[in-house]
Amino acid sequence: MKPVCLVIGAGAGIGGTVGTRFAAEGYHTVLCRRTDQAGLDSLVGGIESAGGSASGSLLNAVDDDAIEERIHAIEKDIGGIDVVVFNLGAQIGDRSLANTTYKAFEMGWRMATFALFRAASAVCPYMEDRGKGTILVTSATAAVRGNAGQHSHAAAMGGRRMLCQTLNAEFSPKGIHVAHIVVDGAVDAPDTLGKMLGPDRFAELRANRGGEHDGLMLPERIADTYFHISQQHRSVWTHEIDMRSFSDRPWWNH
Amino acid sequence: MKPVCLVIGAGAGIGGTVGTRFAAEGYHTVLCRRTDQAGLDSLVGGIESAGGSASGSLLNAVDDDAIEERIHAIEKDIGGIDVVVFNLGAQIGDRSLANTTYKAFEMGWRMATFALFRAASAVCPYMEDRGKGTILVTSATAAVRGNAGQHSHAAAMGGRRMLCQTLNAEFSPKGIHVAHIVVDGAVDAPDTLGKMLGPDRFAELRANRGGEHDGLMLPERIADTYFHISQQHRSVWTHEIDMRSFSDRPWWNH
Amino acid sequence: MKPVCLVIGAGAGIGGTVGTRFAAEGYHTVLCRRTDQAGLDSLVGGIESAGGSASGSLLNAVDDDAIEERIHAIEKDIGGIDVVVFNLGAQIGDRSLANTTYKAFEMGWRMATFALFRAASAVCPYMEDRGKGTILVTSATAAVRGNAGQHSHAAAMGGRRMLCQTLNAEFSPKGIHVAHIVVDGAVDAPDTLGKMLGPDRFAELRANRGGEHDGLMLPERIADTYFHISQQHRSVWTHEIDMRSFSDRPWWNH
Amino acid sequence: MKPVCLVIGAGAGIGGTVGTRFAAEGYHTVLCRRTDQAGLDSLVGGIESAGGSASGSLLNAVDDDAIEERIHAIEKDIGGIDVVVFNLGAQIGDRSLANTTYKAFEMGWRMATFALFRAASAVCPYMEDRGKGTILVTSATAAVRGNAGQHSHAAAMGGRRMLCQTLNAEFSPKGIHVAHIVVDGAVDAPDTLGKMLGPDRFAELRANRGGEHDGLMLPERIADTYFHISQQHRSVWTHEIDMRSFSDRPWWNH
Repeated sequence: MKPVCLVIGAGAGIGGTVGTRFAAEGYHTVLCRRTDQAGLDSLVGGIESAGGSASGSLLNAVDDDAIEERIHAIEKDIGGIDVVVFNLGAQIGDRSLANTTYKAFEMGWRMATFALFRAASAVCPYMEDRGKGTILVTSATAAVRGNAGQHSHAAAMGGRRMLCQTLNAEFSPKGIHVAHIVVDGAVDAPDTLGKMLGPDRFAELRANRGGEHDGLMLPERIADTYFHISQQHRSVWTHEIDMRSFSDRPWWNH
Repeated sequence: MKPVCLVIGAGAGIGGTVGTRFAAEGYHTVLCRRTDQAGLDSLVGGIESAGGSASGSLLNAVDDDAIEERIHAIEKDIGGIDVVVFNLGAQIGDRSLANTTYKAFEMGWRMATFALFRAASAVCPYMEDRGKGTILVTSATAAVRGNAGQHSHAAAMGGRRMLCQTLNAEFSPKGIHVAHIVVDGAVDAPDTLGKMLGPDRFAELRANRGGEHDGLMLPERIADTYFHISQQHRSVWTHEIDMRSFSDRPWWNH
Repeated sequence: MKPVCLVIGAGAGIGGTVGTRFAAEGYHTVLCRRTDQAGLDSLVGGIESAGGSASGSLLNAVDDDAIEERIHAIEKDIGGIDVVVFNLGAQIGDRSLANTTYKAFEMGWRMATFALFRAASAVCPYMEDRGKGTILVTSATAAVRGNAGQHSHAAAMGGRRMLCQTLNAEFSPKGIHVAHIVVDGAVDAPDTLGKMLGPDRFAELRANRGGEHDGLMLPERIADTYFHISQQHRSVWTHEIDMRSFSDRPWWNH
Repeated sequence: MKPVCLVIGAGAGIGGTVGTRFAAEGYHTVLCRRTDQAGLDSLVGGIESAGGSASGSLLNAVDDDAIEERIHAIEKDIGGIDVVVFNLGAQIGDRSLANTTYKAFEMGWRMATFALFRAASAVCPYMEDRGKGTILVTSATAAVRGNAGQHSHAAAMGGRRMLCQTLNAEFSPKGIHVAHIVVDGAVDAPDTLGKMLGPDRFAELRANRGGEHDGLMLPERIADTYFHISQQHRSVWTHEIDMRSFSDRPWWNH
């Protein structure tokens, strides 16, 4: 039976690409995303036509019990979850405090912090019983510093980072590897960055920094590192790692 | 007219003591705490009998509009708020993931992260109009690293820290000073540490580390630094500072 | 007998101003600087004409035994040193790797890292015998992140920061307070910034950001916080603190 | 022609093992270490008998020009250096300030900070001409926090970390990848940890934490991650990463 990789937040950028990579490496990948059944079908179809194994369904992570029920169902019907790729983002662009509604602030927390807590609460007992498991958490620059306009996003990601540390502190000795991955740059991802910028500005960004320029982070290459971390021997686990394009400045420089 | 200092979370430890200090320095202090009218009256009475000016009322910070209405009422009825001491804690002791309920996790966020966002949303427009103001945010070790059992607390405080940074990034150029104060040690505070430990363990801790031993942080001395930061000239503002007893190890050592 | 404050690196900016402040608060201040006897005399004269007590001498901190002999002489001839203000800088401007000579790189370390180690090695035994003492270490943004062109400065200041932590870890329980103060902005200091920029650019900077603009950190106001930290009760010591102008962005933002 | 990997600090732990791994992946590995010609020959012989290509020589990194001449000679005689594994350590065990000689403090800097600066100064111009290159820098917990007794080591490693950041800031846009790898745990390395502890304590540690216990970091598995980082696509470079055993607590916990 194939090992199972669950991707929560499987759009066309990091999530879907990492899921595709795990499938190529022999995992059955379960893809969850909030919207776009056609996009989901396309990801599953792509994996299967490449000889891999995948399934998927739409899932609104902020709905009560949605994450939890999915995890229980996978454990029961598909197999024990070996790897969770937790890839829900909560970037809503820069907004002044006056333009950040309570709803937007809370939604950031529900997506970026609470949903991870809920996923961990559901999956960790299974992983603990098996004495192993991996949770790869996509994170953002906003987890390590708060820029102007990032009230919702930074508060949510700062919480996510600390939660990764408390999860790791409790579960690492039990064989569960939690890695906090700071994606410190713009990703060549039409479903997130593309939608936030709109088609014109995204096309312009791609023209200036994408492709040969390598100024946008390529999801396929991000997936290399996600997969590597998931395979680290337990004597050498990485808990925090950053990634960015060679042409970008790290968050600590300016 | 006296300048106004609002303390949100004015128990017998840091909050009440800092508020008393601002009153001694010539501020009218408004003290808000969730419970214990007698304790509140005692704080206000103590300030007044020392010749200072204070008022106060019970306030459940997680109630809808509670913080916001209080701020608007103070601005209207008492005077412009010069200093907010945001001192709500969210420490609930160490609990395993299995023993951290969704409710407890959410309550941590509501107290430690969202309440600060709400307070800032309400008070910053007033401060911005005046071109000045200070928000002193009590924070905890859990804001900078997540230990086992601290899922709720660390996620909430990590969010608080990043929120302080985003607030500062937006409002510092407008004359509003937001300081994130990492209280990295046990405070000699009967209302928080005392209640968490219970009377016997708290008495034992005081016997071993309190008083002459200086192993517990003295609220009066914490107040020295809070007041100092509130008076820093705007050319030399501190945004992050830590504090602990000489006999404690900083969080980064072990 | 007056308590003694030794300033190592007492130019017309932070060092001289902090020394002057300690003298105003009742300390005998000993001022040491590498060059400019006239400037030194002016500082001492200014303190004395204000009714304070000071002495001083030129000192090349990188000379063998220079720091050590001065400390021993003060302890023997003037009195026990209560406070050391370690204020040697090592900023040489931005230089590419190709333009950073081995000598420049080593000089950065000798000034910013090794000189602090030597000063601490000389003074800590005295302070330990007395069970108290304070070492205030001026530091720089380069201690917490390395920007392009800062090879010498950042390597030296990164070493300084870690050295402050190891000193604190060993000596805090013995009553010696070591504080690492990140001066994260341009200081209105003719002897350092002024010389680095040259008179024209410094005048221009002052015109645009100084005075009423408060965009340059005022040494007198920096001294407020240095003095405050030196007076913190040992139950509430600060070990790391940052400072910058309200109009500057903290190092973590961009 | 094979790509070239130069290992500076090629003992039987991380250095030799990482070098062996690069050889297995098709690189010609040049191994440098200070002492033990027999150990060096054994490493080279092991690589060659496995079908790989290696050479090596003893090198005292603190000798004037030793590193520089070796780099120039490799570039001239063997080929362009694609990867430098900079693996010089400077851990000398815990020593109080009184027991840390000036010589020991300086030696830490010469090994851990200045030697990296020298190596980078020599190799970066070659890499810049080729528009690519990788420098993998082994680092230690002491680079991110200073514990008691670590005066020499922490000051040196703190400098190393900042130097990695300044190197990266200058050279990343030119195609040179500098990665700072925090090895945050005890490595199963007889040449370093073994010698520091002595044979009896090292044997005891291995019995309690080694082998199946996975409590010592296995050099072969560390090499997996070093190699991975060296192969990251330039759109997704990692600049800081930590590693430790699942059973160890990260440096930020206690």
